[in-house]
Amino acid sequence: MTATVNESIRNGVDTATLFATLDAVKGAPEAARFQFRAANEWISGTHNRGTIHRYFGVGEERTHEHVFQFDADHPAVLVGRDNGPTPVEFVLHALAACLTSGLANIAAARGVRLTSVTSTVVGDIDLNGVLGLNPKVRNGYEKIAVRFTVKGDAPAEKLREIVEQSRNRSAVYDIITNQVPITIDVATD
Amino acid sequence: MTATVNESIRNGVDTATLFATLDAVKGAPEAARFQFRAANEWISGTHNRGTIHRYFGVGEERTHEHVFQFDADHPAVLVGRDNGPTPVEFVLHALAACLTSGLANIAAARGVRLTSVTSTVVGDIDLNGVLGLNPKVRNGYEKIAVRFTVKGDAPAEKLREIVEQSRNRSAVYDIITNQVPITIDVATD
Repeated sequence: MTATVNESIRNGVDTATLFATLDAVKGAPEAARFQFRAANEWISGTHNRGTIHRYFGVGEERTHEHVFQFDADHPAVLVGRDNGPTPVEFVLHALAACLTSGLANIAAARGVRLTSVTSTVVGDIDLNGVLGLNPKVRNGYEKIAVRFTVKGDAPAEKLREIVEQSRNRSAVYDIITNQVPITIDVATD
Repeated sequence: MTATVNESIRNGVDTATLFATLDAVKGAPEAARFQFRAANEWISGTHNRGTIHRYFGVGEERTHEHVFQFDADHPAVLVGRDNGPTPVEFVLHALAACLTSGLANIAAARGVRLTSVTSTVVGDIDLNGVLGLNPKVRNGYEKIAVRFTVKGDAPAEKLREIVEQSRNRSAVYDIITNQVPITIDVATD
């Protein structure tokens, strides 16, 4: 069996490490307490820049291998200069990324080899809400629709079950479909 | 008054265009119906790439001036290769960006000149949820805390009111603190 050496690698996921991580957290649940962070600096108008680098997890302060920076802006039709996506588009990206990551992990854990996974996420929003023109209209998305195309060495039904389990264990799906409390503090000096 | 020509530009926001846009939408509320979109392609393991380009708004299909692409991944400690931020970090970035854009617009509309706006957003998450190790733990953030530092030519109380109004009209704040329905369809061929 020439494939033995890399038998634990499936879909680019090291399943041996994945299962070892799960076992380690079972024995020390506190290791799973994470704090993620983003910083932001206003540039001009609706243009601003976010930085993602430091986080806390598995008991200590950590840094990503790179400093990630992302510009956000509004397009001209929304009185911006289109230097980056709108903030609400980053939410759609986060949702697709979260479901896709989970899908790859779950397929690997279940012994399914994926060949391709693509998705589109669309969010409908009525900007009469954020513009303050209609108090009956909410500020955020009315609804979001995700469409996955998943291919791999398993029957369609099994591929669908893997997507369903990814939804069941998705952090971003939970954040959007349920409620997360947010506090905002302001310093002015 | 030498400043007359650019009097409508404040904080990089063209307030004349902003107010004209508000008036236009008042007269044609359907113009405010937008659909934002993100596409995603799985690369390997938890690494995937999102693309943001097309959207619908003000009655027609539109494209951003650039094709925006963003990689997402998990760090090594979460069995990934750290090719990008985690999906949940993009959510924090989206929140900071949305509140900051709103703040600049609202300050401009209220005649306040900002000199600097920075913020940090932190989200606490217990990964026993997404790892499926404790059914009592939710998948998403337990709580998110935002800290703004805002400087400008207005008293502290007025700057705080502007942040408060930005929260009141923030799409991403609404999406996270309230509930948005998500549907997921799966094609396998």
